[in-house]
Amino acid sequence: MSDALTRLRSRLEDVHGLDAVTLLLGWDQMTFMPPAGTLLRARHLGLLQRLGHEKLIEPETGRLLEELRPVEDSLDPDSDDAALIRQARRRYEKAVQVPPELTAEMIWAATESMPIWVEAKASSNFEHFLPALERNLELRLRYIECFEPHEEPYDILLDDFEPEMVTAEVRRIFDEIKPELMSLIEEQRGREVDDSFLTGDYAVERQVALSREIVDLLGTRPGAWRVDPTEHPFAAGAGIDDIRITTHYYPDNLDSFFATVHEYGHGLYEHQIPRAIESLPIGTGASLGLHESQSRLWENLVGRGLPFWRFFYPRLRERFPEQLGDIELGRFHAAVNKVQPSLIRVHADEVTYGLHVILRFELEQEMVNGRLDLRDLPQAWNAKMKEYLGIEVPDDARGVLQDMHWASGSIGYFSTYLLGTVMSVQIWERAAEDIGELDELIERGEFGPLREWLGENVHAHGHKFSPQETLRRATGSTIDAKPYLAYLKRKFSAPVAA
Amino acid sequence: MSDALTRLRSRLEDVHGLDAVTLLLGWDQMTFMPPAGTLLRARHLGLLQRLGHEKLIEPETGRLLEELRPVEDSLDPDSDDAALIRQARRRYEKAVQVPPELTAEMIWAATESMPIWVEAKASSNFEHFLPALERNLELRLRYIECFEPHEEPYDILLDDFEPEMVTAEVRRIFDEIKPELMSLIEEQRGREVDDSFLTGDYAVERQVALSREIVDLLGTRPGAWRVDPTEHPFAAGAGIDDIRITTHYYPDNLDSFFATVHEYGHGLYEHQIPRAIESLPIGTGASLGLHESQSRLWENLVGRGLPFWRFFYPRLRERFPEQLGDIELGRFHAAVNKVQPSLIRVHADEVTYGLHVILRFELEQEMVNGRLDLRDLPQAWNAKMKEYLGIEVPDDARGVLQDMHWASGSIGYFSTYLLGTVMSVQIWERAAEDIGELDELIERGEFGPLREWLGENVHAHGHKFSPQETLRRATGSTIDAKPYLAYLKRKFSAPVAA
Repeated sequence: MSDALTRLRSRLEDVHGLDAVTLLLGWDQMTFMPPAGTLLRARHLGLLQRLGHEKLIEPETGRLLEELRPVEDSLDPDSDDAALIRQARRRYEKAVQVPPELTAEMIWAATESMPIWVEAKASSNFEHFLPALERNLELRLRYIECFEPHEEPYDILLDDFEPEMVTAEVRRIFDEIKPELMSLIEEQRGREVDDSFLTGDYAVERQVALSREIVDLLGTRPGAWRVDPTEHPFAAGAGIDDIRITTHYYPDNLDSFFATVHEYGHGLYEHQIPRAIESLPIGTGASLGLHESQSRLWENLVGRGLPFWRFFYPRLRERFPEQLGDIELGRFHAAVNKVQPSLIRVHADEVTYGLHVILRFELEQEMVNGRLDLRDLPQAWNAKMKEYLGIEVPDDARGVLQDMHWASGSIGYFSTYLLGTVMSVQIWERAAEDIGELDELIERGEFGPLREWLGENVHAHGHKFSPQETLRRATGSTIDAKPYLAYLKRKFSAPVAA
Repeated sequence: MSDALTRLRSRLEDVHGLDAVTLLLGWDQMTFMPPAGTLLRARHLGLLQRLGHEKLIEPETGRLLEELRPVEDSLDPDSDDAALIRQARRRYEKAVQVPPELTAEMIWAATESMPIWVEAKASSNFEHFLPALERNLELRLRYIECFEPHEEPYDILLDDFEPEMVTAEVRRIFDEIKPELMSLIEEQRGREVDDSFLTGDYAVERQVALSREIVDLLGTRPGAWRVDPTEHPFAAGAGIDDIRITTHYYPDNLDSFFATVHEYGHGLYEHQIPRAIESLPIGTGASLGLHESQSRLWENLVGRGLPFWRFFYPRLRERFPEQLGDIELGRFHAAVNKVQPSLIRVHADEVTYGLHVILRFELEQEMVNGRLDLRDLPQAWNAKMKEYLGIEVPDDARGVLQDMHWASGSIGYFSTYLLGTVMSVQIWERAAEDIGELDELIERGEFGPLREWLGENVHAHGHKFSPQETLRRATGSTIDAKPYLAYLKRKFSAPVAA
């Protein structure tokens, strides 16, 4: 290995190590940290992010990247080293555009906004949150100005969450999806699906055991995972052998189960990154969208499918005989797939979910392009909820204040949820084609072949390529809404078992 | 504030922040980390230590310290700023003597030694551990050579754990203690104390509740502490509002209770550091010895005293009526103070404990001065156990392999346990004098006055002064074994309640 490459590698290992420790500290904050430690934690997270950023933008990084140009050209573009140099160059060239003071200001503003958002949501008081939101947006607009003009200013924000994806492409996909979802919802409106038995006495300690059972069943290497309770489920961890997923146990429903399966998908992506690249910035998921494709695949394509429940329903019933003893498989499967427009994105079903995302993406366009005064955001939100989902929003806590993303400064993030959902169907269909009899395997509780297919075709690439290139390598195609729409129609236009 | 001081402060905040995150990652490793994450964790700990070290020894630190000499001279030496500059200078001047490669080698050797020690202890095979120990010792000897010659080479190691303490002083104190402890043990040899009821069915979940009860009772600010199970109890945490203590629950005895009270003492020290210095290197305990004075004070002077048990024994009995229902207070108190030479340091009583430490201190002298071939270490250990405690060591697992310190490279650490125990009595007696009626307060379960006295007289100084200067400010005297020896004689020469 060239000396410059060795030095770049070791520098990037430091950057990635700081990222990994940051993730772990975030996990700790949301699971076990004593609440009084919040302010100090914000300071420590800021420190780690700053040190990583400094390490990345030091002139030495630029010098090494310059020196490595001929090396890069001589390498197989698919090799780890070529990918590492390519990705480092991309990240470096973005990072050096941004003055460290602005980076620090953005981190600090987000830190300060979070508790204000918590208060505002608790009291459903948008006015209380407004100044913090204005500040976060203003900083993002200053961030955009650091870069050469793009086709659309929003492109710059989006690129941080979904590298090399542009706004126009997202708009094209979402415009294709929106009317189809709305008509599917219309179609469902008459249907009566009984899901009353999903609410009831679901003892938390039995749900805890269930979460562990399903994670073990879907499959992990031993001694490498944790499942812990938290407020808003997420997946984190420090590396491929230290995967931490979280879920939220409600004593009166089974939502924790689907949250666990969802987070399993995220965890598995990081768990199956090749050991050779685990300590490098290319040793992680390629984007938020591709990450979401993995969580959605396990949650929806596996975890809400009939084959899965044919296998797993007897086990679930055994754990909750009082609630489910009288409920047949068909009724249970219909209930967990009930389409019902509702207020909260994270609880939305497969069909309505997309419209929650599209609404946010559209509002972000207006915000970033200055076409919407932030004071009018609740009205704009509520109008779209009415238009897309036919729902009246009773208060801002269950409306515009429901998500933490804007409070944390993450403007441009939401679309990745739907992009990931779209990609999940493309990946699922290709996996089914390659594996053959995937439904039958799942019906027998055999998840190994799917896990391995994902490992070889998606996870093995880590962040070596752009998300779209990764998807192309896995499926032969870049993002395409058609399989997703066809899947929804097949699943939800068919007569529902009752 | 001068610009140089502002810059030094911010630099030292980074160093201290990295130390705090390191502590937290250590806590996570010993409590919740999936076991497969061990290797990666070692890498991340190494990264944080290296970044902190680099930040400290950068030439800019030296320049700032030079520039600040006149500022330092003009400041009140008791002020936070003067203490910060003083301590930074001391730390910087030590750190720059050591080549970063040696620092990295020491961290790495310790990381590699730990699992080897675990295996060696499990199979009681000293030979298996020997090469790792040789390597750690050799690196420490190279470390010593980095510095100007001291009176004794061991001084340099000791100074890292107990700043400004010298070997000759420790030897003087230990030589004063050793014959007294041996004669106290001799005196106890005939006594029969029944402690059979301390072994039995002590349900772990009741011990868990007990640990929380006692920590709340001794007193903390709300929402700032955690108590978690681990293998070897320790205290850690990220700062004054994020204190994490650990304990080990055995299903057949009450050791967890005393471990919790011990760790409470460590936790309280960090918890009561003044907010104004919490983010700086002076915002922590002054030394391992002074830290141990706090844990020993709560464990022994409070937690094994009759006033405490007059108050607390009814509560304990209520939790374990099957075990303790028939046992009177006097018998219980005698049992938890039983003197009995035994193999394992961490389980030793107040009288024999000191000899376990002295033995290790003496062996370390031989090791560092090259007077002992490491191959002969088990024999030397066993001979001293026989001489000091009259005990035959049946195997190395319960002998020379019992502690992890040498595996982690911590040669020079052990003496701080006994130095701390000695200081705990000095501090206790001065607190009792200042507070008045301390026994009566404790008998009523009122721990606030003691907590506050410690806060004002010990904890408030953080690491602003050397440990001995801190002790002098708290008690009017530097370290002195007489109060400790008088206390032991009073307590253990008196006829024991039976």
